[in-house]
Amino acid sequence: MGLELYLDLLSQPCRSIYIFARSNNIPFEFKQVELFKGGPGTGPGRVAACRGPRLSAPLLAGSVLGKKPAAGSGAEQPHAGPSHSQGAGKVSLLKKVPALKDGDFTLAECTAILLYLSRKYNTPDHWYPSDVQKRAQVDEYLSWHHANIRANAPKTMWIKVLIPLFTGQPLPSEKLQEVMEGLFASLKQFEERFLQDKAFIIGSEISLADLVAIVELMQPVGVGCDIFEDRPRLTEWRRRVEDAVGKELFFQAHEMIFNIKELSNIQIHPQLKEHLAPVLMKMLK
Amino acid sequence: MGLELYLDLLSQPCRSIYIFARSNNIPFEFKQVELFKGGPGTGPGRVAACRGPRLSAPLLAGSVLGKKPAAGSGAEQPHAGPSHSQGAGKVSLLKKVPALKDGDFTLAECTAILLYLSRKYNTPDHWYPSDVQKRAQVDEYLSWHHANIRANAPKTMWIKVLIPLFTGQPLPSEKLQEVMEGLFASLKQFEERFLQDKAFIIGSEISLADLVAIVELMQPVGVGCDIFEDRPRLTEWRRRVEDAVGKELFFQAHEMIFNIKELSNIQIHPQLKEHLAPVLMKMLK
Repeated sequence: MGLELYLDLLSQPCRSIYIFARSNNIPFEFKQVELFKGGPGTGPGRVAACRGPRLSAPLLAGSVLGKKPAAGSGAEQPHAGPSHSQGAGKVSLLKKVPALKDGDFTLAECTAILLYLSRKYNTPDHWYPSDVQKRAQVDEYLSWHHANIRANAPKTMWIKVLIPLFTGQPLPSEKLQEVMEGLFASLKQFEERFLQDKAFIIGSEISLADLVAIVELMQPVGVGCDIFEDRPRLTEWRRRVEDAVGKELFFQAHEMIFNIKELSNIQIHPQLKEHLAPVLMKMLK
Repeated sequence: MGLELYLDLLSQPCRSIYIFARSNNIPFEFKQVELFKGGPGTGPGRVAACRGPRLSAPLLAGSVLGKKPAAGSGAEQPHAGPSHSQGAGKVSLLKKVPALKDGDFTLAECTAILLYLSRKYNTPDHWYPSDVQKRAQVDEYLSWHHANIRANAPKTMWIKVLIPLFTGQPLPSEKLQEVMEGLFASLKQFEERFLQDKAFIIGSEISLADLVAIVELMQPVGVGCDIFEDRPRLTEWRRRVEDAVGKELFFQAHEMIFNIKELSNIQIHPQLKEHLAPVLMKMLK
């Protein structure tokens, strides 16, 4: 049994793994996990929507929002709600996407999966340089990313798309403004402290740091918050990242997020709305 | 010029680096950064307390709370407020502790520093195993840690010690209860999914994962929330970690946090209290 990757390309970390594996010609079986659709399932943490679509709130929280659900929300234990019969829920130690299965070995967490793939398939050195200082700079970015870009960028999708979908009404504009201010502060640091006047984060070649950053920054773009506008340095960097992995692959990986508005056609059961709305609001605090 | 580490042992990530360097006999110059005390300084982000003690709110936020300050709080740009003349503010790219300086090379972020030290000084394999699967398990824990243990444990110190110190009054008990619920949910996952019935997180030997976890879990203990009580499996693991790094070194690294109550004698300027109280409250949302 070969390498299996359990992914939903609506999730940013899943996209980074997909792009990394594809652009490095790593052979894998794509196990589609659909956060918004799914077949029958009885696992804890799963909630059923009306007329077909299913949504696991905790799974969404862990993979798309980039934040674990608040305590006491009834959503502390993330469980996957994959449509595939050999679901990610059975594969991932932490029961969320992305998840990797390689024979008997299973692995969760985006960074861990990317590093595992880079080592096992001996990908080109620039992704995670053997030079001890350059490698440390990749590690430094990956760590900073967690509490900064990842803590801010995904919230735009929740505010613009998912919360209106669940609560039935848009959030006050102040809330979006607050999130955008946090994101702008992170982008300022990203440009001034990490990108500077270099082609890529750690120098002249693309690394895992750029890949992890770009997929997160495409989430706001998908929901209509074009953070690249008026940021020429960031725009040039995005263009270089797209060229490095291949424009076609980049677009393919982001197709779902570019078509995010299709989600608004999903019928949500009133009970589900009632259950999730306060949870979602709490997450955004 | 040899290796310099800019640390304040009140900060959990600093303690993990200190313990790692000392227990592996890595020669370094300890550059003391004091979050609560300090000499003259003019850097942005620094705020002066009355009669001597100085406190940089953003620095505290990044290193002790484990969360970056909220946007619009006036604290978006972390700057170090070290007492040492060659301060961490000049050393760290991100201007916060912990920071490493090795010749001309500077590095921030706890995980990045630990990995850099393990590679440069070729520390024993068990810290970050060369076995590709075990290494991936360390990476998996380090990534999970960010949004779980690290997102919850440090808040106990803010609620029990720092917020009362700045606001002059204790927080409602519900707030502590909410934080403890989040922490208990993380501990449950930590025990059931990571520790299981093993001696250490990835098996029979200590790794960076255990070290990063233990320093964070000692923060609540220091402020009187003994999370090890009634958790025999966790207690046994703590004992093994202490034995592995040496009880004396472990105690020495945690001496400040065990004496955290001494902080309550610091005189805080009313203006500083006024400035910081809303920021701190926002962080705890």
